[in-house]
Amino acid sequence: MLGLMQDQPLMISSLIEFAARHHGEAEIVSRRVEGDLHRYTYAESAARARKVANALDRLGLAFSDRVATLAWNGYRHFELYYGICGSGRVVHTINPRLVPEQVAWIANHAEDQVLCFDMTFLPIVKAIWSKCTTVKHWIAMCDADKLPSDTGIPGLRAYEDWIAGESDAYAWPEFDERSAAALCYTSGTTGNPKGALYSHRSTLLHAYGGALPDALNLSARDSILPVVPMFHVNAWGLPYVAAMTGAKLVFPGAALDGKSVYELIESERVTMAAGVPTVWLGLLGHMGQNKLRFSTLTRTVIGGSACPPAMIRSFKDEYGVTVLHAWGMTEMSPLGTVCNLKLAQTKWPAEEQLGVLLKQGRAVFGVEMKIVDPEGNELPWDGKTSGDLLVKGPWIISGYFKGEGGDPLVDGWFPTGDVATIDAQGFLQITDRSKDVIKSGGEWISSIDVENIAMAHPAVAMAACISVPHPKWDERPLLVVMKKPGAAVTREEMLGFYEGKIAKWQIPDDVVFVDSIPLGATGKMQKIKLREQFKDFKLPG
Amino acid sequence: MLGLMQDQPLMISSLIEFAARHHGEAEIVSRRVEGDLHRYTYAESAARARKVANALDRLGLAFSDRVATLAWNGYRHFELYYGICGSGRVVHTINPRLVPEQVAWIANHAEDQVLCFDMTFLPIVKAIWSKCTTVKHWIAMCDADKLPSDTGIPGLRAYEDWIAGESDAYAWPEFDERSAAALCYTSGTTGNPKGALYSHRSTLLHAYGGALPDALNLSARDSILPVVPMFHVNAWGLPYVAAMTGAKLVFPGAALDGKSVYELIESERVTMAAGVPTVWLGLLGHMGQNKLRFSTLTRTVIGGSACPPAMIRSFKDEYGVTVLHAWGMTEMSPLGTVCNLKLAQTKWPAEEQLGVLLKQGRAVFGVEMKIVDPEGNELPWDGKTSGDLLVKGPWIISGYFKGEGGDPLVDGWFPTGDVATIDAQGFLQITDRSKDVIKSGGEWISSIDVENIAMAHPAVAMAACISVPHPKWDERPLLVVMKKPGAAVTREEMLGFYEGKIAKWQIPDDVVFVDSIPLGATGKMQKIKLREQFKDFKLPG
Repeated sequence: MLGLMQDQPLMISSLIEFAARHHGEAEIVSRRVEGDLHRYTYAESAARARKVANALDRLGLAFSDRVATLAWNGYRHFELYYGICGSGRVVHTINPRLVPEQVAWIANHAEDQVLCFDMTFLPIVKAIWSKCTTVKHWIAMCDADKLPSDTGIPGLRAYEDWIAGESDAYAWPEFDERSAAALCYTSGTTGNPKGALYSHRSTLLHAYGGALPDALNLSARDSILPVVPMFHVNAWGLPYVAAMTGAKLVFPGAALDGKSVYELIESERVTMAAGVPTVWLGLLGHMGQNKLRFSTLTRTVIGGSACPPAMIRSFKDEYGVTVLHAWGMTEMSPLGTVCNLKLAQTKWPAEEQLGVLLKQGRAVFGVEMKIVDPEGNELPWDGKTSGDLLVKGPWIISGYFKGEGGDPLVDGWFPTGDVATIDAQGFLQITDRSKDVIKSGGEWISSIDVENIAMAHPAVAMAACISVPHPKWDERPLLVVMKKPGAAVTREEMLGFYEGKIAKWQIPDDVVFVDSIPLGATGKMQKIKLREQFKDFKLPG
Repeated sequence: MLGLMQDQPLMISSLIEFAARHHGEAEIVSRRVEGDLHRYTYAESAARARKVANALDRLGLAFSDRVATLAWNGYRHFELYYGICGSGRVVHTINPRLVPEQVAWIANHAEDQVLCFDMTFLPIVKAIWSKCTTVKHWIAMCDADKLPSDTGIPGLRAYEDWIAGESDAYAWPEFDERSAAALCYTSGTTGNPKGALYSHRSTLLHAYGGALPDALNLSARDSILPVVPMFHVNAWGLPYVAAMTGAKLVFPGAALDGKSVYELIESERVTMAAGVPTVWLGLLGHMGQNKLRFSTLTRTVIGGSACPPAMIRSFKDEYGVTVLHAWGMTEMSPLGTVCNLKLAQTKWPAEEQLGVLLKQGRAVFGVEMKIVDPEGNELPWDGKTSGDLLVKGPWIISGYFKGEGGDPLVDGWFPTGDVATIDAQGFLQITDRSKDVIKSGGEWISSIDVENIAMAHPAVAMAACISVPHPKWDERPLLVVMKKPGAAVTREEMLGFYEGKIAKWQIPDDVVFVDSIPLGATGKMQKIKLREQFKDFKLPG
């Protein structure tokens, strides 16, 4: 027997209409490519999202057709999110930090019909347009008078010109809530990128989960700065959560340096900012050099890669800002866990609380997780035993776009590729990526643990710990260090820094100093490149 | 094209399993009918819910069969919620404050197969068991040795005896998330009660909505006291929200007097309590008389009927507790709106903030609302224009159980029977029930406005404003007052108290003092009875 409740599908369009109706006056502020600040309201944004929907109808796009974006976080990108998904098409956010050939490959694989881009990325589009065989329409996200006439891109139109004549009324269609809404390719370290295809249902459930007090804790009293890009897993869902809660949205555009981010936080009275550790390094560096303080910021969400403990301490002790350590994946929409204390822990001493806050946190309701041994047997939640982490839930993928990579699930669970412990209170700690762990004499050494200690050294800007082949131990750790400008530290000082901090056999065998560490398109260290570079490195002894 | 996300139905069983796994150590504390406190954890509770599921299987109950409860808020009732719904049956919570004939009528209408009751309600069961034609099993929610031998109720078993031999392992089934999960009859003022039939989907979406920072704002750092009964719209969903968030749960059992509620709040370090205004009157009375303070309580959710402004002020100014004014209905699971300030309002002066907080608040995402004129035309959100309130959303009914009362929807919207204004910021204010509004000379007078003023008078314990037929104006307001014990106030003083507070023509024509005002089964004033009692009342002039 079915319940007698209204059969209303979960639609992404309902988010923007809710925001327009209930938070019509709340602001969306964007730093534009031109450098100036643009500001308008949810009511105006919804009206323009409806124009986008009408413009897409006029192009004759079919249901589920893909519309690509190559853009920073900004109001036009936000309008595209809603106009594309809301009208039944799929927004395909492409990472502009990929090399042009990869952008073209992805656009072709996704069979994008339209590609909308910020003017920053005109060089990429110029380089690839002739290779993108499915794209019929190119839209430059700018005013009509900013469109260069000599791009050579056939039929290129300015966004403002494209939507100018459209009506701001649009009857958002209702359809199967499991329909595709958004597509995001993982930057896969090996093989071709694979696409995660989100649905309206998964997006709305994820937004509910993300807004919860024990997740990102967002309300109409917040001003949110998503530094995490909208081209990377939908900026962790923040454009959706913001509309759901009516929070003020502040988009940083292309200016992700410490000074620009700091000024935006202050001028727009930001209460919550979200991003990867590398962005916060720049922000904290700028603030430290100029002895600056935050006026309104209460918390930052840090994810994408493990947050160095030194950064969590710095935010808390020096700036009074709570770091919400979070963990997720493109394949998980991305939210998996967020670190918030439990009732009993709120009475613990500060140092013990920090021990908890260094972990990636507890599962958001909607995400099930387990750790298993190599045979797939579930391992205990004791905070010590580490195993392969698997997850399950309505906002986790069942497969990749077009079936690439085959069926990724194991008995209905998605293997994350992470190695983790879970403690008795349910707090997850990622100890490593399974491919980055160093297997030394039958024991595992966590590359992340080794890196976090190095990052706490005042002379270290960035550090990577990688495995190097070893005749006796199979693998041994090598520490690759990039020093802070002007800072000095020797190999011996660096190795001595580990004494008493981890077991002797976990200390790296050697240290190499480099000018830069390669970063991938999502800002993560590319250890696969370092392993390749140092594969013949001769360890001492 | 469908998205490629895991096809996982929203199941109520996932809530209790999530709580057991991620918050296994969090406490559930219950005041028992015997008066003592019982305490255990979510892990233990889940194990016993699985025993209930096995016991129901053993009884041979079919999918969707109804299992009734006649019980206070307590741990056994909580186990029944999950054991019944989780195993695919429907938990039918019956209001024990109804007269026995109504209880029997409802049990027969629902075709309940099993009826579980607290020993408090043994007299009701004794009076009705022979009239309940579908109930095959009677379970007394007590230890085996507490079961009287001479009840005459055939096959009566003690709850602890019933589940004792069952396994605490159970594979919760997965099925259509739209399946019926819970049934609750409205106490309808006219005609027979009608049943709202909630689904697994509606219950989980409602729990997500209810936990949001701008709704009840619940996390694993909360200790929740649901004073609102589990037999009344699932205690506003709190048993589900608590499991979703891992909050500590504190159940008050039968002891709802001010002293007992106060002691429980203090001993269990309650941070949030939820109930109807009449319960808080008793609590505040007890605290005022004994000069008591709260140690941990930060907020109370007040709904069920409009909260008198004097009570909101008292909580805030005297006790530092924020009142979250909420509005909902049995037909809405029940959450519609909760009153929380928006960002800009947090900078307003306290008195202006109070003006906002007196309203019922903003829609939780998942609830759409509109106000219309008698012809169904939508009215403006200006905070002044009042109209009939209609709602829409996935946790709002599409019809009543067995189709009673026909199709209640108007173009897909549920007419609430409330009259309301909505302001430009989206804040709803219920001005009256449509049947309680006083239609005087073509103008409407809000009975709630008139009552709130009376309630602010120090001598008034309770006040009802009802319409009395009038030859010239059609209807005129009459104020019915119940004085506080030992307090004195005259008709003239009472009428004088209105001067300057509302327009002259809105002031009641007369005042009558009564010893008691009739309350319905959910604690609301039964104005229909008062209107009947005073229908021939002769107004002065």
